[in-house]
Order: sequence, then structure tokens, then C-alpha cells
Amino acid sequence: MKHYTSINDIDDINSWIEEAKKLKATPLKNIDLGQYKTLGLLFFNSSLRTRLSTQKAALNLGMNPIVMNVSGDAWGIEFEDGTVMNGTTAEHIKEAAAVVSQYCDVIAVRAFPGLTDKEKDESEHVIKSFVKYASVPIVSMESATEHPLQGFTDALTIAENATKKRPKVVLSWAPHIKALPHAVANSFTQAMQKMDVEFVIANPEGYNLSKEITKDTKIYHNQKEAFKDADFVYTKNWSSYDEYGQVLKTDSDWLITKEKIGEAKFMHCLPVRRNVVVEDAVLDSDASLVIEQANNRTFAAQLVLKKILEDL
Amino acid sequence: MKHYTSINDIDDINSWIEEAKKLKATPLKNIDLGQYKTLGLLFFNSSLRTRLSTQKAALNLGMNPIVMNVSGDAWGIEFEDGTVMNGTTAEHIKEAAAVVSQYCDVIAVRAFPGLTDKEKDESEHVIKSFVKYASVPIVSMESATEHPLQGFTDALTIAENATKKRPKVVLSWAPHIKALPHAVANSFTQAMQKMDVEFVIANPEGYNLSKEITKDTKIYHNQKEAFKDADFVYTKNWSSYDEYGQVLKTDSDWLITKEKIGEAKFMHCLPVRRNVVVEDAVLDSDASLVIEQANNRTFAAQLVLKKILEDL
Amino acid sequence: MKHYTSINDIDDINSWIEEAKKLKATPLKNIDLGQYKTLGLLFFNSSLRTRLSTQKAALNLGMNPIVMNVSGDAWGIEFEDGTVMNGTTAEHIKEAAAVVSQYCDVIAVRAFPGLTDKEKDESEHVIKSFVKYASVPIVSMESATEHPLQGFTDALTIAENATKKRPKVVLSWAPHIKALPHAVANSFTQAMQKMDVEFVIANPEGYNLSKEITKDTKIYHNQKEAFKDADFVYTKNWSSYDEYGQVLKTDSDWLITKEKIGEAKFMHCLPVRRNVVVEDAVLDSDASLVIEQANNRTFAAQLVLKKILEDL
Repeated sequence: MKHYTSINDIDDINSWIEEAKKLKATPLKNIDLGQYKTLGLLFFNSSLRTRLSTQKAALNLGMNPIVMNVSGDAWGIEFEDGTVMNGTTAEHIKEAAAVVSQYCDVIAVRAFPGLTDKEKDESEHVIKSFVKYASVPIVSMESATEHPLQGFTDALTIAENATKKRPKVVLSWAPHIKALPHAVANSFTQAMQKMDVEFVIANPEGYNLSKEITKDTKIYHNQKEAFKDADFVYTKNWSSYDEYGQVLKTDSDWLITKEKIGEAKFMHCLPVRRNVVVEDAVLDSDASLVIEQANNRTFAAQLVLKKILEDL
Repeated sequence: MKHYTSINDIDDINSWIEEAKKLKATPLKNIDLGQYKTLGLLFFNSSLRTRLSTQKAALNLGMNPIVMNVSGDAWGIEFEDGTVMNGTTAEHIKEAAAVVSQYCDVIAVRAFPGLTDKEKDESEHVIKSFVKYASVPIVSMESATEHPLQGFTDALTIAENATKKRPKVVLSWAPHIKALPHAVANSFTQAMQKMDVEFVIANPEGYNLSKEITKDTKIYHNQKEAFKDADFVYTKNWSSYDEYGQVLKTDSDWLITKEKIGEAKFMHCLPVRRNVVVEDAVLDSDASLVIEQANNRTFAAQLVLKKILEDL
Repeated sequence: MKHYTSINDIDDINSWIEEAKKLKATPLKNIDLGQYKTLGLLFFNSSLRTRLSTQKAALNLGMNPIVMNVSGDAWGIEFEDGTVMNGTTAEHIKEAAAVVSQYCDVIAVRAFPGLTDKEKDESEHVIKSFVKYASVPIVSMESATEHPLQGFTDALTIAENATKKRPKVVLSWAPHIKALPHAVANSFTQAMQKMDVEFVIANPEGYNLSKEITKDTKIYHNQKEAFKDADFVYTKNWSSYDEYGQVLKTDSDWLITKEKIGEAKFMHCLPVRRNVVVEDAVLDSDASLVIEQANNRTFAAQLVLKKILEDL
């Protein structure tokens, strides 16, 4: 594998899941694979799980992780072509990506969307610029519209916890006070579409995800109806896609409660605002898989890095 | 040992001192003990000595340190139970601690007190929440009211430099322009109470430490009297405990001078404001043990980590 | 070698270049040399190339790099002697340097000039204080007036790309909107003066570098004349030295263009503002050596660290 920036980079999600389970059983089996190899982790935005799990994955493969907070540690980076750089950016991505490629065998990048300019966000200019101008493989640690390490993590977690052949999985929007990206919901949707599950989405009107992502996945605007017979309720807030980046609704109608989810397992990528997105009673119950999901982040990253290292 | 968050976690300070001396003599002897083990260092506050010495200790044991500045790198963390998280905090400690436990074999945490709410600071909600919600051992790199790695470091330094069987050790308050925590003074007091030394405290009226810490240790409000025949003068500023977090006195009456300490050795945990806390003539003389103390920070951390790794 | 803070610390630049070429051919040959040794990287200022390449160099030698952003991670550091520290600085360099020496076998430091007080900047108080008060070797990762890792990198790159025995090398000033230091230009000038090249400098009137640096190097105020028959055009902006730290000229007269440099190779230390300092057509052409320069930063640092480790 060359780059990993999308769920679409997974050739066969079931064989990936089987491989990830094996890595999880013997995480240090490939400790020599990454010896003397360096993983550069570039953060344009905050990170806890991704920061730690990706480093842990690299260490499990014997790699040396080097972390850089681009905003705080280095220079403002310019992504536009042909611009006269007399503003706030001091280095062009053409140089930055090529330069970091001199020191790192693999580059992992996190860069959130601005959520003000749909076209710009959908162009994925940051991650695509790294792919274009770097000379080494690029791993997305969440880009403007996708979070493929999280998406595969969630597929793995569902495969591990499914108790029937074709479980029903619901992706449910939930309230939040801030405008959040669509990346997690998009990648989760794409991952579920590749798996043998009954997958539906529940969100209020005005909150449909991009049609290019949801395709023919059934969308409910009635949460209760969507949750009927659910085995997994995956919850995530996102801002409006149609009224791009807007927060249209903050009341607690769509709050996830124990009563609403019934016997279903609860999933969330974290961080989660308690009693805004989901009530304590769910997170503190055995129905919650959120910590297990966090653990699987390591093995999602480790599988991706392993595949990249094997192809170097 | 499971956690190390207090001098009270030391079962026998004299045997710890002997063990630490051995580690110092052969620091790489246990280089295989921590192999493939990860130490997560979480900083809610600034750090120089603790940051570097704890990483050095981990490296001496073959561990992989992963550093995270929680405030800058990740999300605001909520510590209150049952709260509706619609404010500035984005992740609850219940998740944060459990999640970091998925990636790190040991977690070290630094979190200073606010110094405005005595009850809240004394509840030690940050470090205690980590102990409660993490599934791996927790090491305090200074909490609201204790700095046990510093306290043991200081005990080790006194043991190494004592020239008589039962030296006289004075903990002296000194002036400072800012409101500082009681953690270093508290842990030093607790360490001295466990050792075979004559220990007294000197501070201005209004600056007595918590009675639960000082117990029956003699407290002088006359610095000169306290310093009589002292072998070690350990200096530290702290804000008032009774008038909690207040700075009552900033004049130089209590400044530590060469003349005042006489033949005694001078100790301070650093950083120290020169000519505010102590005059240059003391720090620049052979009487100063401050750099040796800083060196011993490595071996205090290494001993704690070694004990934890042996019990994993 | 004890410290590396200046091009003047290079005894024989030609033998260094030969050694660096060998390191570049077999970068992991000395992987055991730095085993169990720690490199502390202290950043008072932003860094991308230096941050990553110096870590990569340390890893190639088997060292453990520990990175610290002094401003954000630790305390404000005082450099004045005898001062009463009742202001914003909390730790004196006497302690800071001595303390870091307890944890690191080598210390690398980056500290830019203020560009407001020529005498203070030229005193090089930060890097010289580290040399004075640390007990371990110090490597400059750019100080107020010198950038010797960059200077040696550039010498190596020119040696690798020269197609004639004695190439003509031009250091050309170029426009920029901010006041920039003289360090890169100074160290490049010193490096070229040690090599067997025809070296000249081109800058507008008012922009001559310090006479103590340029010595008898020919300075042109006519860029076109200077560029005649050039084999290498090394470009860099710097603020005025005579009118210290001032930006006297921001128009594009001195912009580097494809037409101006003709057949010459283009060099720049990066980051570079495109179409302010140099036009896209140059950076995007085969004439540009900037990425190769960035790559050589690793081997410059690795050679310096190797020489230091061999002398420990």
C-alpha cells in the first residue's frame, strides 16, 4: 500500500479485520519490520487518541515516531499555487512536504476542515498536497472530510462484538454546542457500506451527510424508528452539510439515552461531551464500547503502517 | 508498587535510599526491564526538570516515553461527575484516563493547584481521578498538594551529603512575587518526618503549612533561631495556607543569604528566582546542592518506575 | 570536538565534507556510537527542518532525542548576571544549563536574535551562556548571529554539485516583508571563505553584512553584475546590519528569477516565501537544490554529533 487517506484505500475490509485481530493478539510480532524507520506525525490540530495510538502503533513495529505540532512548533504553511507569499504563511507545502520526506519514511498528517468553505474543504487540499508533494507514503490522521483510521477501527470493533451474522448498525447524529466536521461520520458510513451489516443513518432534517457518501444508505429523520432492533448505535455529532458548517439544533431531543438504545451496544469515537451527546447512564454501562474502540485505534494504525512498511 | 502519588507510598525510606544509590551507580543495569513498555507523561503545567528527568529515567529502564502537553496538544478535560458538558471542556477524565491506559503501561501526570479553592485543591481531584479511572499505574509528577518525586529526591540528597548521624534539617520559607503551591514543602516535610534527622520548619506568621502535614514538627517564626546549628537549609516559597493562596509578604527579610546559613548546605527544588529567594553568593558557592538535587530527580523517578515495572 | 557553535569550529572543511559524504552513503554505520546517550533539543524559537533533521541524525547514531520547546513547555529563562529576578523570568541560565546537563549527554539549542539591540545579539548571550554553564557539549541549531549546521550543509551541497574545480558562488540578498536575522548569511559566508570557490556577495546598499564576517569578500550592489557566470546562486533575505534590524527595501527589484540566474543552481536554506524571495519558475525547476540541501541537514548534524560522541 502506498498511502492511506480514505476507507476507499482498503481493498478487502474483511481480510483487514482478520489481520488486525492477529496483530492485536501478538502486537510485537513485527517489531523488526520498522527498525531504523521514522514516522513523522504532523498535527495541524489537537489530538489525544490519535497522537498516542499512532505513536504506540509505530513503537509496536519498532519505528521511531517524531511528533510535530505544525502550528506551534514550525511555520504557517501555504497551500495555494502561484501565490505571492507576503502574508502570514512562511513556507509552501511544496517545500514542506518534500522536506519532511527527507527525514521521515512515512508521514502521518492531521488537518481539520475550516467548515466555512465547502468547496475548499472537499478539495482536501492539505492531505492531497502532502500526497502530491511528499516523496514518501502519507497516512491520514483525520483530514477535512475523512477519518479512515477511525473508520477502520470501528469496523474492527463491530466485527469483534457482533453476536449475529448480519447485525443492524445505526449511525445516529446527536447534539453538540459546536460546529463539528463530517469526517468521522463519513468514514464510518463508508466502512459500514463495505461490511455485511444492515446499516442505516438517523439524523434530523437539515443534517443529511453528503449524498456522495451516503449513496443509497437509508436515512431516518425519526431516531426512535431508526433504533428499532439495533445491535450497535454509533453516535456522532456533525454540523449541517447542506447549510455548510452551521449548527441548526442544540436541544436535547436527539440525546442518546439508555432507554432509547435498549439492548444495543453504544459506540463513539471520543472525545464525547457527557450529557450533551449521550447521558452518563449509557457511557458508564456495559453497553459502551468506547474504550475498546480507543484500544483498537492502535491496531488500525499498526495494520496500516505494517502494510506501508511491507511495500516500502 | 501500584501507584506513586505521595511520600506515604514509600514503605521504608531508608531502603529506598539505598536502592536509589545503587541505581545511580549503575543506571543501565535494568535496561531490559522496561523493554516495549510505554510511559505516558501528561503535563497540565510547565515543566523542565520533571519533564527531562522522568524521560531520562524511563530511557534508563528501556521504556519508550511519550510526552503530551494536555492543554496545548489535546482537549480541555472535565473532572466533575454528572455535569452537562456544554462548556469549555470537551472530554471527561473517565474517558481520558481509561483511553490513555490503552496506550501506556504507566501514566505520569503533572497538575498544579488553582490556589483559589482550598477544598478543591485538597481533594486532589486530578491525580485521584487518574488513579480511579486509569487501568494502569499512576505516578505523580507534582499534584495540587504533593510532589513526591521531589520529596524522595531531597531525602536521597540529604542522605548522600550528611556528615553526621542525625543532621539538623531546616525547611525555610523564602520570599517570592507570585503565589506558589505547597506541594514541594509538604512532600519535603513528610520525607523528613520519615528520616532520622532533626527537622524543623521556619516560616513567617501566617505561612504555617497544613497542620495535617506538619503534625508535631517544630515551627519557628524566627528564621535566625531556626537556622542555629543547621546542617541543611532547604528553601522554598509557598503562599499562605490559612489565607489560602494569598501572598502576604514580599519583602526581603527572609531572603536566604550566605551569612544566615553559615556552614549549612543549601537546597532548593528549582526553578529559583535569584536574589529574590536566595542571593547569588549562596547559589554560586560550594554550599549549594541544587544541581545535585536535579541530578537525583532521575534516580528517584527511575526507582519508582522500576518498582512499578517489577509489579506489573 | 567539544562544542559546535560556529563554522570556525570546523578544523578542515574539505575533510569534513568527505566524512559527511561517507555518512550519507551509510547513515546507520555508527548506530552503536550513541547508544544510551541522550540529545536534548531546546527550542526558544520555531523550527521544522532543524527540529526533524537533528532528531533524525541522533536516531541514525542510536541516540535518544528529547525535545523541549523552552518557551511553551518550561519557564522563562534569565540570562543577566546579578539581577534580582522579580520579573517575568523564573529560572536563571546558570541553573537551567547545569540542570539539563544532568539529563542529556549533548545539548542542542536554537535561539534567534531580538534584532533590536546589536550589541546584545552580537554578544551571543544565549548560546555562550549554555557553553559557559552547561557541563556537556553544546550544538548550535541557530544562534543570534550564526547557523553553523546550515553553513556546513550548504558547503556539502555545493561540493556535491560542483561541476568545475573552482565554481563561482554568489550569496544574494532577496526581498522579504519581515526583519530576518543575519545568521544564515554569516555562516554561509564563513563556510565559503574556507572553500576553494570564487565567492562574492550581492546586496543592495545599506544591506552589507558585518565587516567582521565579510572581511575581504567582494560585495556587489548590482545583482546582475554579481550573477555573471555564477554556478551557484545562494539566496537569503536579511535585515540591515548598519541600520540594525531595519527593513529598508521590500520591492521586487532583487527577486530571484529564472532569467537572472541563467544556468546557475539555486540554493536557499528554507523556509522560503515564494514569489517574494524567488519566483516559482526557479523553485520548480531542476536548477533548485533546496530539497537536497534539506536532506543534507541530517548529515551535517550527524557528522557534528558523531565527532562530539567520539570525544565524550
